[in-house]
Amino acid sequence: MTQIRHALSVTRDADFAAWYQEVISEAEMAEESGVRGCMVIKPWGYGIWERIQHLMDTRIKAAGVENCYFPLFIPLSYFAKEAEHVDGFAKEMAVVTHHRLIQDGKGGLIPDPEAKLEEPLIVRPTSETVIGQAMARWIQSWRDLPLLTNQWANVVRWEMRTRMFLRTSEFLWQEGHTAHADRDDAMKETLRALEMYRQVAEDDLAIPVVVGEKPENERFPGAVATYSIEAMMQDGKALQAGTSHYLGTGFAEAAGIRYQDKDGQQTLCHTTSWGVSTRMIGGLIMVHGDDDGLRVPPRVAPQQIVILPMLREDDGDETLLAYCEELRGKLAAQSALGEPIRVLLDKRAGKATQKRWTWVKKGVPLILEIGGRDAAGGQVSVLRRDRLWRNDGKVNFIAQGRDEFLVQAATELEDVQRALHGEAAERRNAQINRTITDLAGLEAFFAEDKRYPGWAEIAWSRPTGAALEAVVQTLKAHKLTIRNTPLDGAPVSGTCLFTGQPAVERIYVARAY
Amino acid sequence: MTQIRHALSVTRDADFAAWYQEVISEAEMAEESGVRGCMVIKPWGYGIWERIQHLMDTRIKAAGVENCYFPLFIPLSYFAKEAEHVDGFAKEMAVVTHHRLIQDGKGGLIPDPEAKLEEPLIVRPTSETVIGQAMARWIQSWRDLPLLTNQWANVVRWEMRTRMFLRTSEFLWQEGHTAHADRDDAMKETLRALEMYRQVAEDDLAIPVVVGEKPENERFPGAVATYSIEAMMQDGKALQAGTSHYLGTGFAEAAGIRYQDKDGQQTLCHTTSWGVSTRMIGGLIMVHGDDDGLRVPPRVAPQQIVILPMLREDDGDETLLAYCEELRGKLAAQSALGEPIRVLLDKRAGKATQKRWTWVKKGVPLILEIGGRDAAGGQVSVLRRDRLWRNDGKVNFIAQGRDEFLVQAATELEDVQRALHGEAAERRNAQINRTITDLAGLEAFFAEDKRYPGWAEIAWSRPTGAALEAVVQTLKAHKLTIRNTPLDGAPVSGTCLFTGQPAVERIYVARAY
Repeated sequence: MTQIRHALSVTRDADFAAWYQEVISEAEMAEESGVRGCMVIKPWGYGIWERIQHLMDTRIKAAGVENCYFPLFIPLSYFAKEAEHVDGFAKEMAVVTHHRLIQDGKGGLIPDPEAKLEEPLIVRPTSETVIGQAMARWIQSWRDLPLLTNQWANVVRWEMRTRMFLRTSEFLWQEGHTAHADRDDAMKETLRALEMYRQVAEDDLAIPVVVGEKPENERFPGAVATYSIEAMMQDGKALQAGTSHYLGTGFAEAAGIRYQDKDGQQTLCHTTSWGVSTRMIGGLIMVHGDDDGLRVPPRVAPQQIVILPMLREDDGDETLLAYCEELRGKLAAQSALGEPIRVLLDKRAGKATQKRWTWVKKGVPLILEIGGRDAAGGQVSVLRRDRLWRNDGKVNFIAQGRDEFLVQAATELEDVQRALHGEAAERRNAQINRTITDLAGLEAFFAEDKRYPGWAEIAWSRPTGAALEAVVQTLKAHKLTIRNTPLDGAPVSGTCLFTGQPAVERIYVARAY
Repeated sequence: MTQIRHALSVTRDADFAAWYQEVISEAEMAEESGVRGCMVIKPWGYGIWERIQHLMDTRIKAAGVENCYFPLFIPLSYFAKEAEHVDGFAKEMAVVTHHRLIQDGKGGLIPDPEAKLEEPLIVRPTSETVIGQAMARWIQSWRDLPLLTNQWANVVRWEMRTRMFLRTSEFLWQEGHTAHADRDDAMKETLRALEMYRQVAEDDLAIPVVVGEKPENERFPGAVATYSIEAMMQDGKALQAGTSHYLGTGFAEAAGIRYQDKDGQQTLCHTTSWGVSTRMIGGLIMVHGDDDGLRVPPRVAPQQIVILPMLREDDGDETLLAYCEELRGKLAAQSALGEPIRVLLDKRAGKATQKRWTWVKKGVPLILEIGGRDAAGGQVSVLRRDRLWRNDGKVNFIAQGRDEFLVQAATELEDVQRALHGEAAERRNAQINRTITDLAGLEAFFAEDKRYPGWAEIAWSRPTGAALEAVVQTLKAHKLTIRNTPLDGAPVSGTCLFTGQPAVERIYVARAY
């Protein structure tokens, strides 16, 4: 097999972290902004986020959840109560202390000492507290329940070590916040949101995930139960790609969220919260990217098909462009995966080969290159991004009749969507070790000197408190964490390899982002 | 004619400002957040914003403009240069000075003195500077032009006197920023954005607007030309509902936005920017609201039709709900105004009359009340929000056969859309005085002791510099401003009533928000 000359300078095998950065840069998804920890999300990266937003928001609305918008700033005093009551309260936040600038007399600007705020304002790290207060105002009786709200917003958590999409000081997300009459209804909503995240990951992003409950030590501070979807990256690490929390009545008590029930009694609400962020895009890259750049599943691709006319800056260009424009129109009039096909005719100046590699690196699912002779002969030259190379090391263009391609285009896109999921699922499943029964085995699995150790699925006794803390410390010594307990309800037997007690459930253990 | 008992406690005539606040509160659009100058946008208000976003974003994408996302924070030093060069640079901004909180030992939290930022960060009042710097990085050659970007984001400008939607410290908007090879292309884009705003205002929000150029003194600081759409509120004041700026090469020079032209020369780009904000919703209220609350044009209504079953909490409810659900399904399967009809079956507990008035105040275009007998007889009872009252002071419900209504529903919504625009245009046109030829006449028009003086359209000589400043001061004494010079190109004659020189164009003079 001939040596392939890949589009990126670094391969996943050589340096996964450097490869990740190169994909982001070469696919023109995002870049450093010059502001510490904040990124500029460029059109291709933002377009993917818009697709995720659209597909998730449709599900959010279908579930009867209503979007709202809450203030960017939260008064400092709102956090004082939380800091007292909640263990693990994070204090790394952006603090606004002044509301005006003045000239410093040396050509610069400084915060105006006369414009110091009486009470500092915090840039929201999450809107839990303000939304809780709003719910307390909005809910009077059982008729107002359930109250189902969601917000699409930017939030800020000061991070010392940042990595684009995965951990940035400012990030974009949605946060759902709901209030219910009782535990059952709140738990139903918690799991509905979790199932929605599973669908977005699996069906839209083509990322296979494990749906499960986080262990006690990994719960959202103050939550009664935290659930997550966990995805495996190509380096074998886990990424928590979305969480949903059942908060019990604790948050309702702190915010005073009460309702009059049918018997006239004042009763505390049960609340939930759930969120997914631009981190999901980091997962997309690390699951589907290859040594030629990104590969975007058609459902979340801002453009699904790009048509590249081989312009020659001569008289033939006009005929060629007309042919391409007609093709574009016919494709745009078709549907694939339940929506009109998103197709771009890239007429920009530049060499066709160079433009091709730009789109390969961006990971557009299908590329059509069309020259003057193709136009004359009613042909197209089709490149599937997930089948980029032939065995002989050449780019895998397939010549096809234009009408034949038009008939198959939707099916082809659906096939790319399925193929990317299949490939990721196969890889993940091959990298889950289900045979480990003792600590030595666990250590050996993760100690092996290979790049992709994957995950271990093991049986345990679900210890709590100090016993759990001992497990956490044992794992920490190997840089491992418990990801979650899968909700699939598969039977479990044997003993817990940490406590020696009878196992009651399984957990996934992995290194994680 | 019988006295009508309106749904609001304050009428427009009695107290326009109090009426405005009551509409916002009773239509459940927004409320004070407890954070100075920031509002909570509630589902109905946010739903309208989502509709505006959707309809405008479709046009933005169709024009080839790509959405990006830029950082919330901008380093202080970025503003120092702007403060030096730009007259009218606004300094009321939120300043972040610390990145961590610590406990103060007295149960409270304070900014950690150890976590003071080396350089303060400003919460973006607009993204002009960061986007300019990004453009300087992204643009190398003429092949990269035009560069067309847009951002949907929250921005903060510290305001001492706030009013919901119209002037808030934090608001939501879109900001378009584009770079071009020459003046002509930049001007074309400036006017394309302006025309897009006109369409959104007229076609979507049913708000008639005057499209024109702002006078020199009202230009965006640093702009070569600023254009606006101006709408007339029901109190006769003007509201600037959107602006588009041609920035020349000044901003490109400050940020270093240059390109290599086809001859290999480094050349400055010509840039534009354009924006519309949640302020538009304030305009919607003040143009279409009446003494019973809001009236939302169908195109931007989060729900266009609400079905209210008259539930009796007895055995008949099941049949009634099934009838309503079938009706809902049939309506949702239809299209009106180019999109699937948005219809809600409101099954919440509560008295039907109370629920009706909730929806009247929210201004949903069509309300269907359906009781058990209607269901049995295949009937519906239809209320058009824009024809709420009969002459005898009763609510204007019209009984109709269900099938007959289904056939007409789309047409009815289209008619409401048209009727609201027609009503607003008629009122506005009646309140524009085009007969004023001298200053005394202008003073008399605005001095008249009536609630709705409206606008004056007058001819002037387009003075600049000190001569313009004299006009501005004259108008200011009457709390008047020049809104814009209409671009309709109608001929003009006579002399300027300010300068006595030959008139060259017309301007609108008005009180404004």
